[in-house]
Amino acid sequence: MNKQELIAEIQRKKSFLCIGLDVDLTKIPTHLLKTEDPIFEFNKQIIDATHHLAVAYKPNIAFYEAYGLKGWQALEKTINYINENYPELFTIADAKRGDIGNTSTMYAKTFFEDLNFDSLTVAPYMGSDSVEPFLNFENKTTILLALTSNKGGLDFQGLKTGNQELYKEVLETALTWKNSKNLMFVVGATKAKYFEDIRKIVPNHFLLVPGVGAQGGNLQDVCKYGLTKDCGLLINSSRGIIYAGKDENFAQASKTEALKLQQEMEIILNEIN
Amino acid sequence: MNKQELIAEIQRKKSFLCIGLDVDLTKIPTHLLKTEDPIFEFNKQIIDATHHLAVAYKPNIAFYEAYGLKGWQALEKTINYINENYPELFTIADAKRGDIGNTSTMYAKTFFEDLNFDSLTVAPYMGSDSVEPFLNFENKTTILLALTSNKGGLDFQGLKTGNQELYKEVLETALTWKNSKNLMFVVGATKAKYFEDIRKIVPNHFLLVPGVGAQGGNLQDVCKYGLTKDCGLLINSSRGIIYAGKDENFAQASKTEALKLQQEMEIILNEIN
Repeated sequence: MNKQELIAEIQRKKSFLCIGLDVDLTKIPTHLLKTEDPIFEFNKQIIDATHHLAVAYKPNIAFYEAYGLKGWQALEKTINYINENYPELFTIADAKRGDIGNTSTMYAKTFFEDLNFDSLTVAPYMGSDSVEPFLNFENKTTILLALTSNKGGLDFQGLKTGNQELYKEVLETALTWKNSKNLMFVVGATKAKYFEDIRKIVPNHFLLVPGVGAQGGNLQDVCKYGLTKDCGLLINSSRGIIYAGKDENFAQASKTEALKLQQEMEIILNEIN
Repeated sequence: MNKQELIAEIQRKKSFLCIGLDVDLTKIPTHLLKTEDPIFEFNKQIIDATHHLAVAYKPNIAFYEAYGLKGWQALEKTINYINENYPELFTIADAKRGDIGNTSTMYAKTFFEDLNFDSLTVAPYMGSDSVEPFLNFENKTTILLALTSNKGGLDFQGLKTGNQELYKEVLETALTWKNSKNLMFVVGATKAKYFEDIRKIVPNHFLLVPGVGAQGGNLQDVCKYGLTKDCGLLINSSRGIIYAGKDENFAQASKTEALKLQQEMEIILNEIN
């Protein structure tokens, strides 16, 4: 899926919601534990209940790796289920990978070709040749960590390197890389006031924004500074949506939470059009 | 395995060699492709032929993920084979992980508990709370990327942040984290002249040094500045050893290459004792 198709989908659904599929077997409704593949069954029901309210789904790969081979099988089934039933959805493998060139190419093939995700999150620390192998893939998006929403995010990202902080240097430098049009950036919502500065560096690139909801970020604040004429934002919510309900009606509860966010987003999108 | 056990093993074998198990099915001897599990069969023969010459083995997880479920099975079989047959070996999952706290904990459980690796490589970009969950594990080692050996390594790692480069800031800051005694650091061998400065910041921590051999680093140069009284170095070689031979005698060829490095290391270790 390319950027224009994503923008069209945002306009059609009046939503720029991304749902994080961070499945923890200790948190899902207990009746699912009796099914053959509880992780996939949970994801399937969440996706079926919310696919018309969200434009993107983002499994965090750590949660699948944690269950070994069964976790990988559940991940494969989940991405295949989305691609077969809802090909209009944008899929994000939240893996935060990055390694020397030939190794990054292997990661890219795994997530872009074998699993057929639309995008992958990547860490910038190892520089240009650790990221460019991902950017080589046509119609695939590389989502580079810039400013993360966790407590220690500013430990290094906030250090001044010359005249500006490291995360701004990462944004500026990444724009010089080959195929930089295939980039998005992770920018945490807990730092809404930073969006104004960030938009001066990357006025048009999409930003993937975690940290709305459970991590305390505010949707209105983020949109005030982060929105572009094409929207330019994907707002992720994980726990606030997928763990909204605890019983057999959990998917319905997720739908209710997703709908609340979608309705807020619709108002915001109507204001820019 | 803890640091003292690793040091004892280095002294016993007169070696600080780490062998990188980066298995690419297009590069291994073709007769292995007929076996049930070519990746594991390749690793097993390499390990059997070299275990007395090396103290550590480092599968790069990208190479296993690239083969999907079969790759993960081969990884599991490889780590189990080492732990059962050669428990004196130090094992490194080269995964370069790192995420927000609860997610890093999941990665830590996967690699430290489920797969039972002794150590894991971790990227520093997300700061303290993305790394400390790994450091919580007793008798496990977290190997933090500091200065990498790839071409783009200095893009961000080499930026001046105040008075010193980012990689030095990473080293200094990491020492302040809880359980920092459980840290090692990745320092690329192509930058041998930097080892002198690095040892001023981390005089006693072990450094994992990739880039000797195929990437052009020189063992003597690295040891001149990087060695401590306990050795303090693990020198990794991947392609130079595991792809030394192409035919049925490939493991013997690997042994020959590993022996050359071990003999160089023995001379170096004898000089400091």
